[in-house]
Amino acid sequence: MVQINENYLKLQSGYLFPEIGRRVREFQKENPGADIIKMGIGDVTQPLTQSVIRAFHEGVDEMSKAETFKGYGPEQGYDFLREAIANNEYLSRGADIHADEIFISDGSKCDTGNILEIFGQNNIIAVQDPVYPVYVDTSVMAGRTGNYMGNGYYERLVYLPCTAQNGFIPEIPKKRVDIIFLCYPNNPTGTTASRQELKKWVDWAIKNKSVILFDAAYEAYISDPDIPHTIYEIEGAREVAIEFRSFSKTAGFTGTRCAYTIIPKNLVASTTDGVEKPLYPLWFRRHTTKFNGVSYPVQKAAASIFTSEGKKEIKSTISYYMNNARTLRESLAEIGFQVFGGKDAPYVWVNSGRGIRSWDLFDKLLNEAHVVGTPGSGFGPSGEGYFRFSSFASYENVLTAMERLKNLKW
Amino acid sequence: MVQINENYLKLQSGYLFPEIGRRVREFQKENPGADIIKMGIGDVTQPLTQSVIRAFHEGVDEMSKAETFKGYGPEQGYDFLREAIANNEYLSRGADIHADEIFISDGSKCDTGNILEIFGQNNIIAVQDPVYPVYVDTSVMAGRTGNYMGNGYYERLVYLPCTAQNGFIPEIPKKRVDIIFLCYPNNPTGTTASRQELKKWVDWAIKNKSVILFDAAYEAYISDPDIPHTIYEIEGAREVAIEFRSFSKTAGFTGTRCAYTIIPKNLVASTTDGVEKPLYPLWFRRHTTKFNGVSYPVQKAAASIFTSEGKKEIKSTISYYMNNARTLRESLAEIGFQVFGGKDAPYVWVNSGRGIRSWDLFDKLLNEAHVVGTPGSGFGPSGEGYFRFSSFASYENVLTAMERLKNLKW
Repeated sequence: MVQINENYLKLQSGYLFPEIGRRVREFQKENPGADIIKMGIGDVTQPLTQSVIRAFHEGVDEMSKAETFKGYGPEQGYDFLREAIANNEYLSRGADIHADEIFISDGSKCDTGNILEIFGQNNIIAVQDPVYPVYVDTSVMAGRTGNYMGNGYYERLVYLPCTAQNGFIPEIPKKRVDIIFLCYPNNPTGTTASRQELKKWVDWAIKNKSVILFDAAYEAYISDPDIPHTIYEIEGAREVAIEFRSFSKTAGFTGTRCAYTIIPKNLVASTTDGVEKPLYPLWFRRHTTKFNGVSYPVQKAAASIFTSEGKKEIKSTISYYMNNARTLRESLAEIGFQVFGGKDAPYVWVNSGRGIRSWDLFDKLLNEAHVVGTPGSGFGPSGEGYFRFSSFASYENVLTAMERLKNLKW
Repeated sequence: MVQINENYLKLQSGYLFPEIGRRVREFQKENPGADIIKMGIGDVTQPLTQSVIRAFHEGVDEMSKAETFKGYGPEQGYDFLREAIANNEYLSRGADIHADEIFISDGSKCDTGNILEIFGQNNIIAVQDPVYPVYVDTSVMAGRTGNYMGNGYYERLVYLPCTAQNGFIPEIPKKRVDIIFLCYPNNPTGTTASRQELKKWVDWAIKNKSVILFDAAYEAYISDPDIPHTIYEIEGAREVAIEFRSFSKTAGFTGTRCAYTIIPKNLVASTTDGVEKPLYPLWFRRHTTKFNGVSYPVQKAAASIFTSEGKKEIKSTISYYMNNARTLRESLAEIGFQVFGGKDAPYVWVNSGRGIRSWDLFDKLLNEAHVVGTPGSGFGPSGEGYFRFSSFASYENVLTAMERLKNLKW
């Protein structure tokens, strides 16, 4: 009989966010009148900006006339968008990345999952703990882990704890690791990595001939001028790093869908015989064979954020969210939480300081304050006791939610 | 050192269409004045219809206001689109497929490649020969084949020849096959499968406990009332078939991007221990973990083709292309080609009848008539000697191209 991919059977329960959705729906059903404030899923709430809307409409209009109609585009994305990204996000920061090393896609979640396809089955993968669950789940599905060990860990996957004790900065792994997922500004902890910290990882990867999968989806939230916006600001990174970027959080594209992945042409990996091969042609082949490009009007909309007006507009939206983050930080500290992150990232990571477990806090906040956050343990065992608040909400809702939390019995 | 997925090294040369693109660009460079008519890549040329454009704009406008803004949508697609598909494409034809069995995606090329992820490594895969190259290439990348054998075939993959000798209808495989890709209306041959023919495959799959991956991307081009539009019109298909559908050719969405895949809830496959498991939760998990849904305005645009006006409009576009197909059939027959397909599909499949090899014909037509078609051998060894003409062109170009071919020396 036809057989399934049994790796899927190793997966534990649902993906974190569907599970949150389930509990919220259940509560809503029992309490139809409750005014629930959602700060759980990291989803933007502010509309697309005027420049984006204008360009999006223009793109649609072009599709309405035979002379300007666009059929299949280049799978890697249109040059106008790739060049705008190269110039504005890389070359302008002294990062030596060129347009043809940029692959436009419909999402970083897709890319960080799909990227494993170009790597061999026997590579050892490391993740930060807590971690964006997609890296782990896709590693499991792709057979890059062993079985679930029953305590939040999968066999063969290397977990690098990030807790208040180590300032949320993982230590260099002691065991052999071939591929490491690093996410900065970090989801879920909202913390960032300094230049020296990233240099340490790049040097390690060069020495160990490992690859860094660098997820920089929240780069636009960095305000500290000393924090690198891309790993390619670090010398040597072109030899060892793949970077993932998205318009989702930068420009409110979570429902519009556009992202990109950088594969430097000099990045290599090895065959089992030890022959070095560039990864670029592999991803190129994967991308052109298994993907058909992002919707043309969407690419047009995405490119508009690199105009001078577009830049101003997204800056203003980001300031709005970061004002929420500041409010969250202050209020939660006032209530007595230990508060981390939220300075150069839209996430505020807290510990109740009262020994409450993550899902218990989730249920308490949902039931007693009608506020939804994300339980830290959902991101990995080292997230136990922690809780993530997202600043992607209206300012009014942030104030109301914090008011409700202040009035809870702790 | 970190290792690559060595299956990629088995892949032969470029994917067919990039190779065509390369030859055309080279010719263009040497002959900048040449007026090249492209009938190679099966890409639509008519603009999006008025209803689609209107709905697309409305979707964009909703993204401009906080009250109607859409962030992350359901990964499987919005209910309004899934329900429109279920009602209009399935229930109305007596095919028992429900909205929650429909997964909206950004392309059938992506889906037919990604679907292999939920199946085990040891399944034996069969393809029609000639075949849409993506099924083969993605099977190779995913390690479902052995090495390239040097004659157009990969080890372990089962090829089912479709030629004029058997009326382009493959025979039931003699060896054990777990998964078969079937494409009807067929790309590249433009032929269709009758109800009895499909019944034969469904019965075979039930008996053998195999799965049919049914690509129905060209379903909208069927005019013969006896030809099924979906495999689920065949009794028992829900137990054995996954169907892929796309808005690309139906509504000109090749640059707009929307498609869908049907996984019936009662479709099962086995673990290595012989325990039957439904495939639905596996694909559900894959889709929600590795994909973030299709752009909201695009889904809104797609749904508009199910309004009464939308239906009329796409019917008219399809008639336009099918008039091209008829012209192609008649002209090519007049020149002396053996002509197949093009009656219920947008592709006309021809044999020069003069023993000319496919790529030689490609070069002859490009060099002497400045007409681009697709060499049949690019779709598989049994396509050698054949050539595909696509009716996705302007009527004027079809006439000019055929006029040029008539004037060639043969």
